[in-house]
Amino acid sequence: MSDKKMVDSITARDENFAKWYTDVVLKSQLVAYSGVRGCMYIHPYGTALWENIRAELDARFKATGHENVMLPLFIPESLLQKEKDHVAGFAPEVAWVTHGGDEELTERLCVRPTSETLFCDYYASVIHSWRDLPKLYNQWANVVRWEKTTRPFLRTMEFFWQEGHTMHETASEAWEETERMLNVYADFAEKALAIPVVKGRKTDKEKFAGAVATYTIEALMHDGQALQAGTSHYFGDGFARAFDINFTGRDNSLQYPHQTSWGMSTRIIGGIIMVHGDDNGLVLPPAVAPVQVIVLPIAQHKPGVLEAAALLKERLEKVCRVKLDDSENSAGWKFAEYEMKGVPLRVEYGPRDIENGVCVVVRRDNREKTIVPIAELEERIPELLQAVHNGLYAKALARREEMTYSAATLPELIKTAKTKPGFIKAMWCGDLACELRLKEDAGVTSRCIPFEQERVAETCVCCGKPAKDMLYWGKAY
Amino acid sequence: MSDKKMVDSITARDENFAKWYTDVVLKSQLVAYSGVRGCMYIHPYGTALWENIRAELDARFKATGHENVMLPLFIPESLLQKEKDHVAGFAPEVAWVTHGGDEELTERLCVRPTSETLFCDYYASVIHSWRDLPKLYNQWANVVRWEKTTRPFLRTMEFFWQEGHTMHETASEAWEETERMLNVYADFAEKALAIPVVKGRKTDKEKFAGAVATYTIEALMHDGQALQAGTSHYFGDGFARAFDINFTGRDNSLQYPHQTSWGMSTRIIGGIIMVHGDDNGLVLPPAVAPVQVIVLPIAQHKPGVLEAAALLKERLEKVCRVKLDDSENSAGWKFAEYEMKGVPLRVEYGPRDIENGVCVVVRRDNREKTIVPIAELEERIPELLQAVHNGLYAKALARREEMTYSAATLPELIKTAKTKPGFIKAMWCGDLACELRLKEDAGVTSRCIPFEQERVAETCVCCGKPAKDMLYWGKAY
Repeated sequence: MSDKKMVDSITARDENFAKWYTDVVLKSQLVAYSGVRGCMYIHPYGTALWENIRAELDARFKATGHENVMLPLFIPESLLQKEKDHVAGFAPEVAWVTHGGDEELTERLCVRPTSETLFCDYYASVIHSWRDLPKLYNQWANVVRWEKTTRPFLRTMEFFWQEGHTMHETASEAWEETERMLNVYADFAEKALAIPVVKGRKTDKEKFAGAVATYTIEALMHDGQALQAGTSHYFGDGFARAFDINFTGRDNSLQYPHQTSWGMSTRIIGGIIMVHGDDNGLVLPPAVAPVQVIVLPIAQHKPGVLEAAALLKERLEKVCRVKLDDSENSAGWKFAEYEMKGVPLRVEYGPRDIENGVCVVVRRDNREKTIVPIAELEERIPELLQAVHNGLYAKALARREEMTYSAATLPELIKTAKTKPGFIKAMWCGDLACELRLKEDAGVTSRCIPFEQERVAETCVCCGKPAKDMLYWGKAY
Repeated sequence: MSDKKMVDSITARDENFAKWYTDVVLKSQLVAYSGVRGCMYIHPYGTALWENIRAELDARFKATGHENVMLPLFIPESLLQKEKDHVAGFAPEVAWVTHGGDEELTERLCVRPTSETLFCDYYASVIHSWRDLPKLYNQWANVVRWEKTTRPFLRTMEFFWQEGHTMHETASEAWEETERMLNVYADFAEKALAIPVVKGRKTDKEKFAGAVATYTIEALMHDGQALQAGTSHYFGDGFARAFDINFTGRDNSLQYPHQTSWGMSTRIIGGIIMVHGDDNGLVLPPAVAPVQVIVLPIAQHKPGVLEAAALLKERLEKVCRVKLDDSENSAGWKFAEYEMKGVPLRVEYGPRDIENGVCVVVRRDNREKTIVPIAELEERIPELLQAVHNGLYAKALARREEMTYSAATLPELIKTAKTKPGFIKAMWCGDLACELRLKEDAGVTSRCIPFEQERVAETCVCCGKPAKDMLYWGKAY
């Protein structure tokens, strides 16, 4: 694709959200479709975005005492089969390696869809005493799930993620960890990505294969569909028993450790796009944007402009990730290009600005212009980046609240589900039958049992029996 | 494994080098053997070492204008087969995915052993005009090669690496890139890892499958065997033609771009161990050591010692990667433990030191002790780290020179090869037959045709015909 074509117009967001999404992903140069079914070629811009997400998350994991390890890509079939619920959940969607060179393998290897089984095998060899606990490990890895239909970032056959796997001396410590890491994800989503999330617990039907409980953060996309943005699982000692991981406790008795795992993936990039993007393309939250500030010289052929712009950029390098575009492309083309790429701030700097000792700063999120005195540059630009973040968060939160409904009866819920995209808060008795019926009749799934409960009615929205919990229901990616 | 067992003695290096290597790898807590054939469980310490190597290399790639991308794990069989020499070289050692879930695939996918073919498929979609060139991309990835026998880091089925893949407008630019990246590797090996290397070109027999030329850096291990530590390949336009990658040139004619690739892998960790390690375990070069300085409080039960040690550590955090071990283990145990882990500097800090306003710094490489006034801490510790680096490099260089021999005749070469481990410099006529005969009769392979040539004789060491080049010969990992 030559540079000129990149700023072709894209489908309007409210006209066809799915097509808008694909247009943005491709034209902002995040990814290209690959010659490998369901896999992406992730361009430098998309890779840099993921690397920033990774760095931000990794710092949060380190701050909560975790260390990184690297485990194998392959899981021997016998290892995968050790925990029954887990294998039942994952076997239908794994890729199998059956041959090495010309040789048929005596045992098939699956390409990891997740690594609980490998971590258990690893932990069995390193956990012997209560002194060896807790083990707080994470890995950054690629995983593969054999998906029928795929979409860039949202559902791909291979995807990139981090998976934390921890082992604890007691159940309560493991429960604490499960909650701690969900809070880390929520904090990251809100503080780094400007995405408001609902924290809660999955129903048994929706929980992870083999887990006792799955915690989740759920975000609402611009089109009213939900995205599960990160999950944290408590396993009890089920895997530990299946994998013979035990330790000598403080009282010298043999005990099984308690386990958690938690993951966030490249899928979150789909969330960033669908929460913040608009008809001009991507809108990136400053904390993870590969380029936070683009400097565009105006009338750059005039003497002194390029030199002044280069100096401006040099000063900005100390406070943000900044790029200068001094190419021959027109100012109009450049405006459109960096809007498409979602760069949070655009700095325009021409002969008159230079003369007046100012520059013009334009926010990507609302196009607000600010005249910034050059003398205050290093102070004002970080403030404006923070303002973009706050603006994005406030807008996303307002939209979510606007698109969150309550329903007390089944007809009401069905009507809302069919006419108003968004979250629906409704009471539930706890029975799987009701959960299945809502899916059948209203086309919604349970997103989570939020930690912050409200009593929106007294009875189950479906069967009318006494309600146990309030749930968020919705359609999901 | 409980902590106590970690400092069991290891096999002496000169008694059984292979066993010493395995002992060090396991007991320094770099890796554990995994339940997956030929794959490693890389512990936090090994992972941190690789992450430091990655960060150092990545900064060098960025400084030379490269960007990271992420390409798929799988290569469809038809894509792998597009370049004949390449598929012939790699097909015998790839892992094949034949099933997704219960379904047999219509086309097999190989797990990437290297990604030239994927990069070519990618480049075909993004290169159209000379303005799109050069493309200077790199990826950090896991790759799989179906090896018969494996050893931690040195030869594993799955390994981690970076692979740079670049496309250029002209052949001369691509040749320059090939050489530039070899120099980046050599600089990294010498400046960051303290490993002296020989830069040169591989013979046709030893070059990469599908390449026109392969450049290499070759390092000598303590036992006199060579390790190929990084390679950089020039491909000409062979792959570009096979993959239909072309562009409109400055003169409007259709042209094929010229390609390079270059890689360094987790194998280099094996090199670090085998160049610098000793009978007490690992010895890590400071630039990549996960812990550069270990602070050990002496007589830590005495009042004020732990507090003073914590303050010392806090000050050191600003100038190096530092850890404080205030565990209950004995000082003797701690000394052995951090020697085993190869931590470059040990700081001993006890009541008398505190009183005198000094600390005792012990170098891992030569056990030299320095009394450092606390007032000069932030200045002296980085100097001492540099001294460790210099000491390691000088020692490795001296050993390599001591173990580098010349041979003018075949009997001389055979005798040297059988009695003196190391590099042998000898002249070569350029014929494959002579290269094969040296392998057969002397058990050595050509390591490289060094860029720095010497005329050690006038005729080929094997056939006696006029010599073309001086080569390094040796046994290799």
